[in-house]
Amino acid sequence: MREDDVVAAIRAIVEPVIHRRIVLGIGDDAALWQPSRSHRSAITTDMLVEGVHFSRALMSLNDAGWRAMMANAADVAAMGACPLLATVALGVPAGAVFDEVRDLYDGLSAAAREVRIDIAGGDLSRAPAFTIAVTAVGEVRPSNVKTRAGGRPNAILAVTGELGASRAGLDVARNPHLLEGELAVAALEAFRRPRARCAEGRYFGASRNVQAMMDCSDGLSTDLDRLCVASGCGAVVERVPVADAARAAAQKLGEDPERYALAGGEDFELLVAISPRAFGHLAQRFAARFGRPLHRIGFLRETAGIEFHDQPLQRTGWDHFTR
Amino acid sequence: MREDDVVAAIRAIVEPVIHRRIVLGIGDDAALWQPSRSHRSAITTDMLVEGVHFSRALMSLNDAGWRAMMANAADVAAMGACPLLATVALGVPAGAVFDEVRDLYDGLSAAAREVRIDIAGGDLSRAPAFTIAVTAVGEVRPSNVKTRAGGRPNAILAVTGELGASRAGLDVARNPHLLEGELAVAALEAFRRPRARCAEGRYFGASRNVQAMMDCSDGLSTDLDRLCVASGCGAVVERVPVADAARAAAQKLGEDPERYALAGGEDFELLVAISPRAFGHLAQRFAARFGRPLHRIGFLRETAGIEFHDQPLQRTGWDHFTR
Repeated sequence: MREDDVVAAIRAIVEPVIHRRIVLGIGDDAALWQPSRSHRSAITTDMLVEGVHFSRALMSLNDAGWRAMMANAADVAAMGACPLLATVALGVPAGAVFDEVRDLYDGLSAAAREVRIDIAGGDLSRAPAFTIAVTAVGEVRPSNVKTRAGGRPNAILAVTGELGASRAGLDVARNPHLLEGELAVAALEAFRRPRARCAEGRYFGASRNVQAMMDCSDGLSTDLDRLCVASGCGAVVERVPVADAARAAAQKLGEDPERYALAGGEDFELLVAISPRAFGHLAQRFAARFGRPLHRIGFLRETAGIEFHDQPLQRTGWDHFTR
Repeated sequence: MREDDVVAAIRAIVEPVIHRRIVLGIGDDAALWQPSRSHRSAITTDMLVEGVHFSRALMSLNDAGWRAMMANAADVAAMGACPLLATVALGVPAGAVFDEVRDLYDGLSAAAREVRIDIAGGDLSRAPAFTIAVTAVGEVRPSNVKTRAGGRPNAILAVTGELGASRAGLDVARNPHLLEGELAVAALEAFRRPRARCAEGRYFGASRNVQAMMDCSDGLSTDLDRLCVASGCGAVVERVPVADAARAAAQKLGEDPERYALAGGEDFELLVAISPRAFGHLAQRFAARFGRPLHRIGFLRETAGIEFHDQPLQRTGWDHFTR
């Protein structure tokens, strides 16, 4: 069973919605509710488990804490919302010492400060392995909410940065000889200390020309498919912006760099669908504001499915229930 | 190291607070923030791990899901808040089948409906054992917020129900011969299907005479100590209302029923500190409204520490880091 199928089955169990103030439930990057008429709050949760999502052979507990917080911040940002606070439920294995818990919390806390999140509460528990369940809350004006749905045929698809560096970092962590020098450093940094695109998320939230938005956490091939399904569209991918480290790693491994980047997850770049007439202007303003280009990767189409270099593109990203 | 010491150390790492709108951070049943001037939102999180908090030999996954949701609802209720929504991060061991995930979600969902919570989002992950991290959000008027702090000497301490039944249920689940008939049924029901006191929490929230409130989740001896520390008081416990099933179980086990109940956790009754002059009236109205008595257990005092039958009372409840 695929993760999305399990989610769909769960959705059927937990519906119907009781409170009308829940304006968006299960299935997007975050859920939305209405604390008062003029406000929307966004909430998202993510679990990182040692041995599943991270291994201490490849990253420190400090890095794992950082990533857990950033993953949630990225989900909040993907709604157009501004992160406000988080809670942390932490499972600690027997035999762990307090310095390990401290190291993990230092990472959580450093990432939280970076994206201006307050860690407002939590829970501590024994568990078979370090288990980090972060829940983040953000806020957004009702008019600025973006979801995965809303993309229309001919919208331009773009991402906020090059992809694949985090995957390259994982490969370098596993095999330190894969890359050298600055490329190795950049790959490991992307893997261990990713950054959520919070300012970019708010920027797109404020634009009426952004039809749909989500973050790339499970690999673009998987995430784009989710955006397409939610928007009732298909897509054509023309090109994939590949990070230098990812290109070098792919070449060393004998893989196609674009496909390597399409399958890589945890880049936390935002994927947006933008009205075709507005794209040029928005991309120009984006570059001026953030000092980096907005990368056009293709466009939405009516026909279902994703095409990449004249071939159907399958999901190659992360799925918890098929791997 | 005690759990509360770990929490205090973590608090030092994650401070300071960035957003002024976080009006209450780590250390109470839930954190509070201000989505708009006239609103307060409460958030709490709790992790349940198979083999740590529950065992499938003693309860079904359905029951575990129910308890996970109720534990969070009880924390929200303890702030005087009304539960609104929850997210669920679920870790599923390799080899689990979808029917198990469904059973767990059925329990989560049934409890959520019972307390009018919408499950608005979640995350699914592999994990070494079933791991249920629920985060619940509730809402409360600023004037109705109650915390563990605020209790003053001479306040009357009371609980919303008899204690110890959940512990008796655990003992019966371990040893089915311990109790028989209705007592066994009541004990198992309290253990497997506890109920958060949401209406009672809102009721106390609306009363200016309730100085402090929390829920009894780790055992009254431990929870009362936390309320005392937060309020800068000590307490005298005069009597403990013991559930019939707990009394019978304690007697069979050769234990003192009151001490058995003091050490039992997961009853989810509310513990309140009430102005002495208002107690009689409030208790009368409580009984009329809920059809059950409000149980007076003792009073707060200036001198630190808790006294029970002329002896100092030690914490005998649940602590994740000393057991």
